[in-house]
Amino acid sequence: MEWFTEYYDGCAIKIKIKRKIAEKDGLQKIEIFETSEFGRMLVLDGRIQFTEFDEPFYHEMLVHVPMLTHPSPKKVLIIGGGDGGAVREVLKHNPDKVTLVEIDSNVIDMCKRFIGIDEGSLDDARLDIVVDDGKKFLEDSEEFDVIIVDSTDPVNVSITLFDEDFFDLASRKCSVFCCQSQSPLIQRDYFRMILKNSVSFKKRRVYLGFVPTYPLGMWSFLLAGDIERFYEERFWMIEGKTKYYNPGIHKSAFSLPEWLKEEVKCI
Amino acid sequence: MEWFTEYYDGCAIKIKIKRKIAEKDGLQKIEIFETSEFGRMLVLDGRIQFTEFDEPFYHEMLVHVPMLTHPSPKKVLIIGGGDGGAVREVLKHNPDKVTLVEIDSNVIDMCKRFIGIDEGSLDDARLDIVVDDGKKFLEDSEEFDVIIVDSTDPVNVSITLFDEDFFDLASRKCSVFCCQSQSPLIQRDYFRMILKNSVSFKKRRVYLGFVPTYPLGMWSFLLAGDIERFYEERFWMIEGKTKYYNPGIHKSAFSLPEWLKEEVKCI
Repeated sequence: MEWFTEYYDGCAIKIKIKRKIAEKDGLQKIEIFETSEFGRMLVLDGRIQFTEFDEPFYHEMLVHVPMLTHPSPKKVLIIGGGDGGAVREVLKHNPDKVTLVEIDSNVIDMCKRFIGIDEGSLDDARLDIVVDDGKKFLEDSEEFDVIIVDSTDPVNVSITLFDEDFFDLASRKCSVFCCQSQSPLIQRDYFRMILKNSVSFKKRRVYLGFVPTYPLGMWSFLLAGDIERFYEERFWMIEGKTKYYNPGIHKSAFSLPEWLKEEVKCI
Repeated sequence: MEWFTEYYDGCAIKIKIKRKIAEKDGLQKIEIFETSEFGRMLVLDGRIQFTEFDEPFYHEMLVHVPMLTHPSPKKVLIIGGGDGGAVREVLKHNPDKVTLVEIDSNVIDMCKRFIGIDEGSLDDARLDIVVDDGKKFLEDSEEFDVIIVDSTDPVNVSITLFDEDFFDLASRKCSVFCCQSQSPLIQRDYFRMILKNSVSFKKRRVYLGFVPTYPLGMWSFLLAGDIERFYEERFWMIEGKTKYYNPGIHKSAFSLPEWLKEEVKCI
């Protein structure tokens, strides 16, 4: 029995490990662990991406909020998300076509082989998988109803998914956009950079969710574009199929603590 | 530079420490640290009680929700909370009288001397400090408008504050009651025990808040008694004086994730 430790500014999380299941070096260092209490865990370049225990908290909030913000999301693009968790949630809305653009094919292969949180969705007939840089792909792509960015932290392979050009491009390629926007609490530089660089969007709102194995458990998301409405009447499509998300949570997630309201005043 | 580590089931949090400021052994082992990023930190029997960084998240949610649930909270009892954080928040509502019953006078002394999050409120003329076991005190006490239990985990000195007799007693001594109810996620046994033992109350509701330095950042509270209303019109009394709490947060905190709705179905 040993421990996996991830460090943030001034603090760290430790996860008890039973064993390392697999490891691969490529574009990123991929490690998959069997944890003691939280199921399997994916680690990229030393950073926890998810544990089976709480990945639904993250993936459901990342996906269902934008999907129920669009009046009829039929064509969906997911950038990143090679583990298939976001695809799994998107498919619950019965779209016509989902495109997954993942820069690192090893993530797809290793997650399918050793974890399986996609629950078969990575083999769904409605899914196109493209192995490419998300920004490059978007430059020549068609338009989408919803674009969801399920990326790692804004460093290394993900750095291009957080600059002004990327957000500008995305704002012209979809009506509803959502990306994970880091911990607004202890990754303030990342969070502020995302707010600063995403000015191209018509409207923007930040929402929060508990993601226990992410830095100090508080995670943020940026919803942008035509985001006036919440199509709660379509909740029946995913009712009974979520572990975290529900309409109450959807609405509540936009209530921000005082210090964070101050922080997002600029948008 | 060293690290303080607190272990939970299958995981742990580490906080970077500059130095230990003070230590005292008595009813509990009290340690006060200067952390690298989170200000000063109180540790009792090896468990983090708060850091200056995020204690307002916890104390504001513990206090303002019950205080604005009562129509006119003039007499308030706080059990535990020797650090004075809860008293500080209660006094913002301009009560006539606040009673603090703390079992360990060392906590009061050490917090006043080495931290000071009470911001002078422990010396307020409206405050009575009683050094006693909260349950024993309540047996012979008068009645209160609001009782707030700001305790450590339900072990050692706090164990009597979580049994059926205590909750039954409290239900007869106040109209609005609130206690911290642990992490519903990774301290499920504690959480379930609290739900099970608090049946005497007329009505009960669970709400959530982010407390980053508590186990995995998700913390729960039990609000009980005559809790039909939220007196939002009195928010002006604390407006501009909170870092976390606001009326949006108050209402949102009662929206529970699907798995937790299932868990609290019993109440």
